[in-house]
Amino acid sequence: MMHAKALPIGVFDSGVGGLTVLRALQYQLPHESFLYLGDTARLPYGTKSPDTVIAYAKQAASILIERGIKFLVVACNTATATALPSLQQQFPELSIIGVIEPGAKAACEATSNGQIAVIATEATVKAQGYQKAIHRIKPDAKVIAESCTLFVALAEEGWVEGDIAEAVAERYLQPLLFAEPEFKPDTLILGCTHFPALYVPIKKVAGEKIIVIDSAYSTAKVAVDQLKQLNLLNESNDKGQIHFMVTDAPGRFARVAQYFLGKELLPHQVELVDFH
Amino acid sequence: MMHAKALPIGVFDSGVGGLTVLRALQYQLPHESFLYLGDTARLPYGTKSPDTVIAYAKQAASILIERGIKFLVVACNTATATALPSLQQQFPELSIIGVIEPGAKAACEATSNGQIAVIATEATVKAQGYQKAIHRIKPDAKVIAESCTLFVALAEEGWVEGDIAEAVAERYLQPLLFAEPEFKPDTLILGCTHFPALYVPIKKVAGEKIIVIDSAYSTAKVAVDQLKQLNLLNESNDKGQIHFMVTDAPGRFARVAQYFLGKELLPHQVELVDFH
Repeated sequence: MMHAKALPIGVFDSGVGGLTVLRALQYQLPHESFLYLGDTARLPYGTKSPDTVIAYAKQAASILIERGIKFLVVACNTATATALPSLQQQFPELSIIGVIEPGAKAACEATSNGQIAVIATEATVKAQGYQKAIHRIKPDAKVIAESCTLFVALAEEGWVEGDIAEAVAERYLQPLLFAEPEFKPDTLILGCTHFPALYVPIKKVAGEKIIVIDSAYSTAKVAVDQLKQLNLLNESNDKGQIHFMVTDAPGRFARVAQYFLGKELLPHQVELVDFH
Repeated sequence: MMHAKALPIGVFDSGVGGLTVLRALQYQLPHESFLYLGDTARLPYGTKSPDTVIAYAKQAASILIERGIKFLVVACNTATATALPSLQQQFPELSIIGVIEPGAKAACEATSNGQIAVIATEATVKAQGYQKAIHRIKPDAKVIAESCTLFVALAEEGWVEGDIAEAVAERYLQPLLFAEPEFKPDTLILGCTHFPALYVPIKKVAGEKIIVIDSAYSTAKVAVDQLKQLNLLNESNDKGQIHFMVTDAPGRFARVAQYFLGKELLPHQVELVDFH
């Protein structure tokens, strides 16, 4: 039997968005191997109901667990907001982390005035994942969360800079960040793993004074800490491997992946798994 | 047993887009009742593979058939392009029509120079549904199809007019309609049931000289003809009823439906069906 330390870390998302988290994980854990699953047959999760997202997330986690993983990162804000407790309950022997708690913690450390804006999918906003996580750390924080559905489509289409991306960012962010007399956020959480692909137009609208928090980096940091605590860090000095899996359309995944992973993937590098 | 003529007509789509077809059907068939299913748990179909779309379409059709329908309209271009023959094979006793053949026919009647542009989802473009249907009717037609993925998200968000919608329409349509020296289309097919919601910005870019074809109206006309031929028209003079069903998130469906149906729906008017 393979020693647990040598097993890969499982990472899943509804599609390509979680690759921003994978990238941060790989950067901080270069000797670890990863098994990444994009549930592309059912994407996006962000416009679906909690019950449906929980059912999909359990199936995605099961696929990774059957392959053998030592640790699981839910690299999707919607799945974290709606399904993390259900996953932890169903798979009690595996350490599972999400992206919301680390993002909330980073925002609470960054804010000076305690006013935090969150942009996310409809489902994440409705589940109030960030609001709850921030208030657990900083009960007096003022948090407003808004959904920015179109950012997902822009990122998937690769329209991540230029006039259209900036106009969309302006339309969503102007009312949230600058229009409320009672709410002057100094911190903005990118509460969807697709949104870091649009960092440039988002930062342009937010301006220099607002700190933009990308959960990917703080999530990777939490993963490192937990793997150390659990004594599960890989002891090899070799570079880790990444194996990519999707539930549908590997060619499309490979093509869109470059906007998130920062490098090209080829279709034959992506395995199609049957989720039925 | 209910007489077949009194049964409703089944209509399905991945979500709200098919409501543009339902609206046209209801307008031309005011005494008919309709059973509409939006497969919102798995939407969108347009970025998924043919095998996955076929599996989803068969399940959607089965849900409608179990409830009792006399005729089925596949009100989704992607499902028509990839799954219509499979559906007709699986349910040979039911008359089933799609939206592509009627749209192709209308375009062939409208064009003067035989050059037709098609905008659709990625999956519909790949399946070459319109290209094949047009060439069956008009073998010498010149057809170019392009995917306009972001239109779906714009329509779902309700951003159907204004600067952003126009900029997106410009970016997709300018190269397709005006940039090719060898291709001067005089007809543009809206090959996705979401796109009629964006008729205003699309028409603004296309200009007065290009005829814009919306499959919804031609599909409804084909449905009327076939129901007459099959002797299945409802003989009642009462106004028909519409029953709405979705596989997920009825509240969201009701909210977004207004951009497609032209009137408001309330969440309690939408039934949630279990597709598992």
